[in-house]
Amino acid sequence: MVRVTSQEVAAHVDGELLGDSGRVLTRIGPLQGADGSTLSFLSNPRYRSQLAASQAGCVLVGVADRSHVAGRPCAILCADPYLAYARVSQWWAAQQRHDVPPGIHPSAVVAPSAHVDPSAVIGALAVVEEGARIGARARVGAHCLVGREAEIGADTCLAGRVTFAERCRIGARGLVHPGAVIGADGFGFAPAGGRWEKIEQLAAVSIGDDVEIGANTCIDRGALEDTVLGDGVKLDNLVQIGHNVQVGAHTAMAGCVGVAGSARIGAHCTLGGGAIVLGHLELADHVHVSAATVVTRSILRPGQYTGVFPFDDNASWEKNAATLRQLHAMRDRLRAIESRQRTT
Amino acid sequence: MVRVTSQEVAAHVDGELLGDSGRVLTRIGPLQGADGSTLSFLSNPRYRSQLAASQAGCVLVGVADRSHVAGRPCAILCADPYLAYARVSQWWAAQQRHDVPPGIHPSAVVAPSAHVDPSAVIGALAVVEEGARIGARARVGAHCLVGREAEIGADTCLAGRVTFAERCRIGARGLVHPGAVIGADGFGFAPAGGRWEKIEQLAAVSIGDDVEIGANTCIDRGALEDTVLGDGVKLDNLVQIGHNVQVGAHTAMAGCVGVAGSARIGAHCTLGGGAIVLGHLELADHVHVSAATVVTRSILRPGQYTGVFPFDDNASWEKNAATLRQLHAMRDRLRAIESRQRTT
Amino acid sequence: MVRVTSQEVAAHVDGELLGDSGRVLTRIGPLQGADGSTLSFLSNPRYRSQLAASQAGCVLVGVADRSHVAGRPCAILCADPYLAYARVSQWWAAQQRHDVPPGIHPSAVVAPSAHVDPSAVIGALAVVEEGARIGARARVGAHCLVGREAEIGADTCLAGRVTFAERCRIGARGLVHPGAVIGADGFGFAPAGGRWEKIEQLAAVSIGDDVEIGANTCIDRGALEDTVLGDGVKLDNLVQIGHNVQVGAHTAMAGCVGVAGSARIGAHCTLGGGAIVLGHLELADHVHVSAATVVTRSILRPGQYTGVFPFDDNASWEKNAATLRQLHAMRDRLRAIESRQRTT
Repeated sequence: MVRVTSQEVAAHVDGELLGDSGRVLTRIGPLQGADGSTLSFLSNPRYRSQLAASQAGCVLVGVADRSHVAGRPCAILCADPYLAYARVSQWWAAQQRHDVPPGIHPSAVVAPSAHVDPSAVIGALAVVEEGARIGARARVGAHCLVGREAEIGADTCLAGRVTFAERCRIGARGLVHPGAVIGADGFGFAPAGGRWEKIEQLAAVSIGDDVEIGANTCIDRGALEDTVLGDGVKLDNLVQIGHNVQVGAHTAMAGCVGVAGSARIGAHCTLGGGAIVLGHLELADHVHVSAATVVTRSILRPGQYTGVFPFDDNASWEKNAATLRQLHAMRDRLRAIESRQRTT
Repeated sequence: MVRVTSQEVAAHVDGELLGDSGRVLTRIGPLQGADGSTLSFLSNPRYRSQLAASQAGCVLVGVADRSHVAGRPCAILCADPYLAYARVSQWWAAQQRHDVPPGIHPSAVVAPSAHVDPSAVIGALAVVEEGARIGARARVGAHCLVGREAEIGADTCLAGRVTFAERCRIGARGLVHPGAVIGADGFGFAPAGGRWEKIEQLAAVSIGDDVEIGANTCIDRGALEDTVLGDGVKLDNLVQIGHNVQVGAHTAMAGCVGVAGSARIGAHCTLGGGAIVLGHLELADHVHVSAATVVTRSILRPGQYTGVFPFDDNASWEKNAATLRQLHAMRDRLRAIESRQRTT
Repeated sequence: MVRVTSQEVAAHVDGELLGDSGRVLTRIGPLQGADGSTLSFLSNPRYRSQLAASQAGCVLVGVADRSHVAGRPCAILCADPYLAYARVSQWWAAQQRHDVPPGIHPSAVVAPSAHVDPSAVIGALAVVEEGARIGARARVGAHCLVGREAEIGADTCLAGRVTFAERCRIGARGLVHPGAVIGADGFGFAPAGGRWEKIEQLAAVSIGDDVEIGANTCIDRGALEDTVLGDGVKLDNLVQIGHNVQVGAHTAMAGCVGVAGSARIGAHCTLGGGAIVLGHLELADHVHVSAATVVTRSILRPGQYTGVFPFDDNASWEKNAATLRQLHAMRDRLRAIESRQRTT
């Protein structure tokens, strides 16, 4: 169990401690349901009423909230309380993490020509193939496969059961969640008289530093040139990245996003859950696509883009959806009326 | 092969047997294509014409269908023939199931501090980590991973290749299909000067009794408090449940559903395939969301809700979709016409 | 590294060689960025300008492009340059493939009653259960599971970590990518007083010859009769095929498609990424469904079908989406105006 004092927290986030500097904190939790040993935080002013009612032993708040923590047993003022919470969560996790000693689990199957740094961890029943390279302090979890000549950078962690195929590369400090498949074949076929002729996917996947990839997410290898994820990219679960796609640095995609082949996504973009980007399109830097939106043409200007059918009770939807099929005809009727009005 | 008599089936479903009580049945099958040794059923009156034409040796039908089975070799009347079919299917499956003797497969890697009930089965090449608890008669299939201090309830089955991460818990009589990932990190990052700072996901996943989870479905661990699935929840394949989500008892979600973080779904809800629920929303009990519908605000009243763009031949769609981008302008033009009519 | 001459390429694709017959080629690449040892191709006339600027040592082009390759060091004219590229990619891949000797890896767990052809390969830590049959030259990759009495046809490759459940069958020359789950239970439950009663899925999955199945794709086993994929079917990643579905020969589905239970998809169909087909529907042969389209009723005529909400900048979308909820009322107002105009 983690056990820290309010003073240690304040020092860690470089914040100004108000009140009890020796408050012992054993839990991070939301304002609601907090008790005297809970460290909590307020980042969204909308929840200020929860702050007043909260029994939290210590709260991280923004400097503008100084007056709202007067009278509390303990508070820490910081420039960005959400970021402070993120940093505290990392510190907390580091304290409760179970150290795994470096080395190769006896049940793992590691090819003689693979290069595994002595400080790396290879988990139970993992497979590391010929010529693969596992960097310093990297962790390859149980049931992972690191294919032939693949490269795992320093301090990168493949949680259990990740497939990292032949010749694919990931940089430093990455985190790949279970079930992710990096480097399966892209979906490429040439039509041939009613059948499909396979186009072999000869390139690989190249991933930068500080990238996180969610559970059961798939990133296909390129046909002729690598599929590329830039530094700091964050992908949630069940995301599909087609072959030859390029994703710019620090772009984030929520769960169930699909990016079709050869699309180029800029840097600092966000794609909401279930969004789809069609193939060969380009998205500029700082483009934000709302959840469930289907991007059917390139977006060259930064901004927020949306395309979602507004849901309704089923009966209302049925009427509106049926009418939608006549929309173009309605427009023509509207024009006809306008034209008749003009002539009368 | 299963081999039962019509009398045994009638007794099993507590139905009224009409006709041949000694009819031997070796197969359950649809009405079409059935033969004299097939047990079939009619639950939807729409298929009554198939009943008349069917060669099925024995049919399960509702009590209202008594007249429709006159003259058949054998029929069983029951209150709910679909439910009767479900129960027979279970009985059938139990008879053809291959018993696996309790115990730990020699190729499995089980930590010394894990507690595995002597009646449980740990399959080939499974990994059970420190402090995990595997309940009575539970089955952990081949290539599964049960993380540190995770708990698998009595009679729960993790089919092969399930990841059940650290500290996550599932109750009794659950069934988790291959590729499911329970307890990967939720998708949480704080923006930090153009980069993303990871928010560690400190809580876990808590799953009730009688829950079924489909293949390659992902349920993320909570940031500060557990992600929770109530008793009797049924999730199909490739479903994404974000961190901190709460799903009420007996709610069912079809394939490819995505529920974003911190959403609270009520009890007895159904979500059709590909539906998406955005983050932090609330759905009341008994809310039914149609397939492919995107829920963008809370739904506090029971009912059926839909939001799907009606598909059409491509040319018609193109015209209507293009016009849709002018819809608000059309409304203004309509108003203008109405206003001109009023003034004339 | 692959090293071929332009003459060898021309012979392989049965094309007409123009220019240098001894040009050595060590790479296949796009026109842009090509160098003198790159084999490139032009299949889409839109990229003719790239051809003129390309430094590629040799280009595959259509016979109609003869004049566009005059003056190049080397070119090969062929009937279908995209198909020629596909065939060259296969030839290339074959040359750089690492041969794996036949046999069973010592770490694999193979049941004594399984039949593994002596020419087959069983990878590290794979599991092959009782009565399974692995055909000639088939490859079962690392961490795969082939269930009881399942059948893998000749020359079929299960890339690492595929689950191929009990009694499921795949024909010859198939390719299944990592994470795919073939034969998990279909999603079937009978309502029973507010709870769900499981319907056991008694049938299996039957897959033809020359089928490719993407990473983390799921194909559920049938309830009473097999789920069926015809010959030559190609499925991309993260596709969901429900129980009892039938997919006709040479139909292709892009990433994230969902086909609900008991749908029947014809032959030679294509489904774009993220498309959804609801349950029990029928699609005729040669039906093409655009990406992200939701098919809510059967399609009995060949053609291209679409239903996607056109995305827009967020502010425009908000106005149009809000108006869409009044569309049926707008139609009524339009009618009223028309009726008033007619009466005046």
